[in-house]
Amino acid sequence: MLAIARPRIRPKPPFILNHALALKARPPANISSFRLRTFASESTATPKKSRFQRAYTFAKYTGYVCLSSVLGVVILGAGIFVHDAFTYTERHVDRVPVNPLALHPEKGGPKNLPIVSAQMDDEEDEEARKLATKPKLVIVGGGWGAIGVLQTLSPGDYHVTVVTSETFTTFTPLLPSAAVGTVQVRSLIEPVRKIIARLRGHFVNGKAVDLCMQERLLEIQTKDTDGNTANIYIPYDKLIVAVGSVSSTHGVPGLEHCFQLKTISDAQAIRRRVMDNFEVASLPTTTPEERKRLLSFVICGGGPTGVETAAEIFDFCQEDIFNYYPKICREEVSIHVIQSRGHILNTYSEAISNYAEDKFKRDGVNLITNARVAAVTPEHVIYTIRLPDGTMEQHSIPTNFTLWSTGIAMNPFTKRLTDLLPNQVHRKAVETDAHLRVKGAPLGTVYAVGDCATIETSIVNHLMELVNEADKNKDGRIDFGEWEFMVERIKKKIPMAEEHVSKVRELFELYDTDSDNSLTLNELVELLEDLGNKITALPATAQVAAQQGKYVGKKLHKLARRQTTLEANDLSFQSQAMDELVSGPFKYFHLGSLAYIGNAAVFDLGRYSFMGGLAAMYAWRSVYWNESVSTRTRAMLMIDWIVRGIWGRDLSRL
Amino acid sequence: MLAIARPRIRPKPPFILNHALALKARPPANISSFRLRTFASESTATPKKSRFQRAYTFAKYTGYVCLSSVLGVVILGAGIFVHDAFTYTERHVDRVPVNPLALHPEKGGPKNLPIVSAQMDDEEDEEARKLATKPKLVIVGGGWGAIGVLQTLSPGDYHVTVVTSETFTTFTPLLPSAAVGTVQVRSLIEPVRKIIARLRGHFVNGKAVDLCMQERLLEIQTKDTDGNTANIYIPYDKLIVAVGSVSSTHGVPGLEHCFQLKTISDAQAIRRRVMDNFEVASLPTTTPEERKRLLSFVICGGGPTGVETAAEIFDFCQEDIFNYYPKICREEVSIHVIQSRGHILNTYSEAISNYAEDKFKRDGVNLITNARVAAVTPEHVIYTIRLPDGTMEQHSIPTNFTLWSTGIAMNPFTKRLTDLLPNQVHRKAVETDAHLRVKGAPLGTVYAVGDCATIETSIVNHLMELVNEADKNKDGRIDFGEWEFMVERIKKKIPMAEEHVSKVRELFELYDTDSDNSLTLNELVELLEDLGNKITALPATAQVAAQQGKYVGKKLHKLARRQTTLEANDLSFQSQAMDELVSGPFKYFHLGSLAYIGNAAVFDLGRYSFMGGLAAMYAWRSVYWNESVSTRTRAMLMIDWIVRGIWGRDLSRL
Repeated sequence: MLAIARPRIRPKPPFILNHALALKARPPANISSFRLRTFASESTATPKKSRFQRAYTFAKYTGYVCLSSVLGVVILGAGIFVHDAFTYTERHVDRVPVNPLALHPEKGGPKNLPIVSAQMDDEEDEEARKLATKPKLVIVGGGWGAIGVLQTLSPGDYHVTVVTSETFTTFTPLLPSAAVGTVQVRSLIEPVRKIIARLRGHFVNGKAVDLCMQERLLEIQTKDTDGNTANIYIPYDKLIVAVGSVSSTHGVPGLEHCFQLKTISDAQAIRRRVMDNFEVASLPTTTPEERKRLLSFVICGGGPTGVETAAEIFDFCQEDIFNYYPKICREEVSIHVIQSRGHILNTYSEAISNYAEDKFKRDGVNLITNARVAAVTPEHVIYTIRLPDGTMEQHSIPTNFTLWSTGIAMNPFTKRLTDLLPNQVHRKAVETDAHLRVKGAPLGTVYAVGDCATIETSIVNHLMELVNEADKNKDGRIDFGEWEFMVERIKKKIPMAEEHVSKVRELFELYDTDSDNSLTLNELVELLEDLGNKITALPATAQVAAQQGKYVGKKLHKLARRQTTLEANDLSFQSQAMDELVSGPFKYFHLGSLAYIGNAAVFDLGRYSFMGGLAAMYAWRSVYWNESVSTRTRAMLMIDWIVRGIWGRDLSRL
Repeated sequence: MLAIARPRIRPKPPFILNHALALKARPPANISSFRLRTFASESTATPKKSRFQRAYTFAKYTGYVCLSSVLGVVILGAGIFVHDAFTYTERHVDRVPVNPLALHPEKGGPKNLPIVSAQMDDEEDEEARKLATKPKLVIVGGGWGAIGVLQTLSPGDYHVTVVTSETFTTFTPLLPSAAVGTVQVRSLIEPVRKIIARLRGHFVNGKAVDLCMQERLLEIQTKDTDGNTANIYIPYDKLIVAVGSVSSTHGVPGLEHCFQLKTISDAQAIRRRVMDNFEVASLPTTTPEERKRLLSFVICGGGPTGVETAAEIFDFCQEDIFNYYPKICREEVSIHVIQSRGHILNTYSEAISNYAEDKFKRDGVNLITNARVAAVTPEHVIYTIRLPDGTMEQHSIPTNFTLWSTGIAMNPFTKRLTDLLPNQVHRKAVETDAHLRVKGAPLGTVYAVGDCATIETSIVNHLMELVNEADKNKDGRIDFGEWEFMVERIKKKIPMAEEHVSKVRELFELYDTDSDNSLTLNELVELLEDLGNKITALPATAQVAAQQGKYVGKKLHKLARRQTTLEANDLSFQSQAMDELVSGPFKYFHLGSLAYIGNAAVFDLGRYSFMGGLAAMYAWRSVYWNESVSTRTRAMLMIDWIVRGIWGRDLSRL
């Protein structure tokens, strides 16, 4: 474990000068190398340089560096300007060909709704017409999973349609930053239309409500500008469900008084409330008690989102409130984090939890661990705390801002999907097999990725199949050789079981209770059930969703490439075999977790932890910057961070 | 008049290369001048350069230019980075001294409301304590007028309090750009708290509702986060009313279905509706008739705001809708401008009106002139048009977006203020004298600037005063010598009359009907009344408001400086004489009008007009860029324009 000491910082005012002087000290080696060669002959002619000459050389390089900077910026500016001048073009469209079915769709399906068999832009040009003949791929959702799919498909693979109720995709990890204005919301979003432009995809702004898997029709609900709804069917050959999740309530009453932080609107609402609280706290009509309540910020949940939001609110107070509001408003701020476990960031390493807790203690953030929120009212958060002697004690914090950031639950469409399928029993998500195909749906037609999905961890369900494959001599028992083969099959089917079946011999001997050097079916059932229970489901994180999306995208791309061959050989495009032929089951590679804790950051990279002050914070920014969805959002994020550094956060309430 | 031909533009893809080549053609003269001198001796030694040598020199400069650019950008980046690292500081406040009266204000005044005699931050530090003893200057409003005052005051002049219901000031001229996302709304606003920080001013987020001029108490209404209101008094020594105006309805029914474009929220609402219209138009559930209605944009009012909004919507369709929506959505867009006069931009020169109309005709924007809007419904705009034979014809345009941008009216506080004063009769604004003091209010205590105010143009009101001063021989008649003196007094009192009294002799002879070489009182009354009618009120523009704000700010600054002297001489600070002693009456300097008309712009500079394509557009941007309120907003605007050039507008609906 590598822990970097937090650097002590003193402000030095004229930064550019400081830095320029540091550079002046030695001339930039690379840049002027061939220039130096030219001067070499001169210097041999006058072997001993006078002080004047040296000063002259020094001045020359100083000038060079300064002028370079100016010139560089000027050239960049001029380039941008010239480019800009060429973006104003005169274009004209007239008599765009449109399929009549797109304007007046025919009705059909179980509910006799209009079926969108053609899109408005399907006959726009040659390319669009060609795409209209491809298999229809429909993606429901616009988050990490959906974008993962879109990024890995190639143009021409499918006739792609994306259905989502937001018109953009959101870079969720930076929502806590957006909630206090460290970055702007528009730096975190990218319009879905711009992402699908590469694939000439279609976008339908609507909400998936139902599904008819037999006729392969997705029912969606659209809304006009007055809020009137209309339902239609979108036909699909392949459907990808990536609708995410909603927050779990844990049965706590009063959650309607809480903020959440899952979407851009959540971040905007939080920012408005935070600004409102400070603005109202500064009013002469506010009583001292009310002021304290307004400046008390309660965060329920000590996971990364909760911790980062607490850190961002602290930063905001420290940097912007300090400068522009009455000092008493800064003094009376209190930030509370209520965590049900013993530590915050409890999924991270212990060293990280401790580091984060120490940092918060230094900052005066009130950590309430081993506590459960009992109720939320418009003016209080009530929580119970378990004392060492086992008794429960109830407390209450007056507050005007409560963030609820614990756990996930199914959204209505996921719920409907699981209701349609008899073997879907998971309470929080739709179950898929290791190939991310929704269990029970016609094979090779419906996939689910991200927060809305969970990969089945039960191995015993595959018992008969495994025995059939492994029991070569058909004696109804599995000897060690057959067990070795079965282990390989298990690894293939359920990759998440891999680490639990690594000790092949030990497992076999452990469950071979009668020591007859073979496993009976009963012994095997016990073994597989225990194995299944050991596997933990993948966490509901952006990382998992993105990897799953990319996995499905790559698979579908490969399938599209093979389609011609498959059809020539009279093999169905939907067949199970084909899906498994082009790609193995999904494997998750954990790249590490990170969190911002207020001018410091922590990284949990599995075996290693890394934590520290500013250096770690910049590393944290780099990681997120790199993961951001487009070049535009990257540029905007960079600009936001620079703007914060120079002018601070925008205090305007919009 | 100088008319620049619109440059024909063809897109050339790799812009930086093009530009770099242009630069390479000749080495940058200034920058490498001393370097060139060094090489001079070399070149005389080898008088005839080989082709290789020339190529080498060329490559050298090319390399120089490229590396300069890179180095420049790197240095700039490093500088910003180093600065950023120093912005994370650890600061702490504890036991901030607060005046008990600020926490529990005493009640008083005509309505027995709490009086804010001390602010929460009045005892924070030495400087704040000193400021608390200064005269109290209260500014109501946060627009151009208010900011003009704040920018011209010096720190320490007054105990400044700004009262406004928005927490920021808005750069209104670019609202049409923000309405379609060419620039972001946050690039147009600056928090009032950041602007008053220089003066150590106080900000109260509230709405002025009433006034007690005898006790010098401003009644304001504040709102908490649940929307509950509370009223308090803020005491003032000087009050500046700069509350702006609301839109005039002209008695047209159904204006609640219209958008306006006076505030940031208006721009945000328009942007949402424009995006909604295109998104809903692209839905498969939308009928072709409904699609046409959704893509029809109606603008009522052919002034600069209306024209610029039409131009921005056109640009948006041309650049972004074209690229990312079904082409049929671009084809079916229609933009309509309904203007009551014969021409759009009718306050500009005729050449400009013609130029703008030609541009709009080429762009396919539907101009409906000599038309009056009769009613607005949620689905239509109904207007009447006067035919050449005098009969009226009624038309209707189906639309889902109507902008109302015609005329101004009083907001409730201005209305209340005029009701309190007996001699306020103007219907649209509060009348002030030429020193911008509200007519009828105790002299030297209440000023009004910007859209909410109008300077009195009636000279006959000053008749007795003028006669008293001019009639030296007290014969009740004004001879020519006395008239000449009176003209000087008129110019001083009502500077706007200046151009109408320039022909002193002609005027005198014209109204001296009995040719007795003197004006009787009756003759004088007629003369002054006619003069007054000739004066046109100043337009309700940002330019007028800003100049008025700066005028009042400068005057108050001078007054503050003189205060000590005045008090020593036992002269009251409020006295009328003092106000007029430190500054003459307000004089408006028209700097010109400009408008954007879609990749082209027009400038009316009084005697000259200037209009053209891209060059004029960049000039138009430069003017607004320069007028923008802070360095931050300037940087942000520049970035917005660059982002639009590179990535287009953000299509996300927030």
